[in-house]
Amino acid sequence: MDEHDQEPEKVLDVPIEHGARTMESTVQSVGMKDKFLYFDVRGRGEAIRQLMVLGGHSFEDVRISMEEWPGFKDQMPLGQVPVLEVNGTKIGQSVAILRYLGHQLRRAGSTPLECARLDMIGEVVQEFTNTEGAGKLPAVLLGFIKANKEEFYKTKIVPDVDKYAPIIERFLLENGNNGLFSGDRETWVDIFAAETFSKLTDYASHDALDAYPRIQALITRIHNIPAIKEHIAKRKPTPA
Amino acid sequence: MDEHDQEPEKVLDVPIEHGARTMESTVQSVGMKDKFLYFDVRGRGEAIRQLMVLGGHSFEDVRISMEEWPGFKDQMPLGQVPVLEVNGTKIGQSVAILRYLGHQLRRAGSTPLECARLDMIGEVVQEFTNTEGAGKLPAVLLGFIKANKEEFYKTKIVPDVDKYAPIIERFLLENGNNGLFSGDRETWVDIFAAETFSKLTDYASHDALDAYPRIQALITRIHNIPAIKEHIAKRKPTPA
Repeated sequence: MDEHDQEPEKVLDVPIEHGARTMESTVQSVGMKDKFLYFDVRGRGEAIRQLMVLGGHSFEDVRISMEEWPGFKDQMPLGQVPVLEVNGTKIGQSVAILRYLGHQLRRAGSTPLECARLDMIGEVVQEFTNTEGAGKLPAVLLGFIKANKEEFYKTKIVPDVDKYAPIIERFLLENGNNGLFSGDRETWVDIFAAETFSKLTDYASHDALDAYPRIQALITRIHNIPAIKEHIAKRKPTPA
Repeated sequence: MDEHDQEPEKVLDVPIEHGARTMESTVQSVGMKDKFLYFDVRGRGEAIRQLMVLGGHSFEDVRISMEEWPGFKDQMPLGQVPVLEVNGTKIGQSVAILRYLGHQLRRAGSTPLECARLDMIGEVVQEFTNTEGAGKLPAVLLGFIKANKEEFYKTKIVPDVDKYAPIIERFLLENGNNGLFSGDRETWVDIFAAETFSKLTDYASHDALDAYPRIQALITRIHNIPAIKEHIAKRKPTPA
């Protein structure tokens, strides 16, 4: 009952031929840029912007103001942003967008099993962004949640960091401690984690990651990639 | 500032050559079956089991008792199950496992953009499983949360169904109302949604989906696929 009695059969972890899904396609081009719709904050959108910048992927960076939002909301597939619009197809959910672009821009794993491991790590980062403490930092910064920022940091955010950051450190260690989650090339999950955790030191507390040197090193590495470094240098300050 | 000034460049949505990542590999086989580790309940594991059954993917169905769990917990990448172990590599997070198997078993989208749309829908189903009402049904059923089941259903679960089921219905409608989320072949997201919502009628209230005919039709369709029908017929009852 607990075991199925078919013949043993195994799916090997062969390298993905990126050409099949990305290389050929990037050579072709049509007139319309992808459109990226989000608010004028880092929030759940900045990792996506950085991934496109890293991949040299031209996009229209639509930043929706609070006044404009009601006019956009009903046209979004989930009534939410971020949304990536590709040839008229709108994709919502930030992690779905990151993964799609990761594959398109060759910033994913190089085998199906590496992709699965990256997806697992991506889910952990996503969980962290959905926590009641760390996940609510933007809402506190933007005033949607009325709270004293220092108090909220100490009592609500620090416990979430204490829970999730060690897991992230361990995943970084497992990949030969080379500073990345998988292989030797930055993927969408490296960008996603670096952006997510750097918001803690940028917006919550400068010492938020003092106990987590591998996450700090990941952030430093990502932020020193020339394309991203230039993007961050030009980026105007936003409240969250 | 809001627009990047690179040349317009576009990644077209070309069909994925499944052969590159799945067909070749399924032909090869090694002696060791994938091992699927979860508790002896449907919970977050049954959709994964059904997907493997659908794909004819042989696996060792390890069902961990509460007594055995402490001996397993520390060996799991996130201290949690479900976990799929492939040649010694352990993948956690149910959605990461579903997506991996979906691609390996040709039960994913047939273009990158279809995959992205399915990922978006998968994220919505996942959100539903993480809600404070519907998501906590297993904990109520297993007694981890002390609550009157009928009262919990009416006050906590129904609002979550009212929020998420219409979105799911709309995604089903968008695909030409053919009963599936994408294309004309059942994918991992169809299996995931059918299992997630069928637990409501099986465990919470028989009329839970009366207002949602497309979700009911999806469940009926999935449960009548011969391999899954046989699996369900043989399945022993579990408390959640």
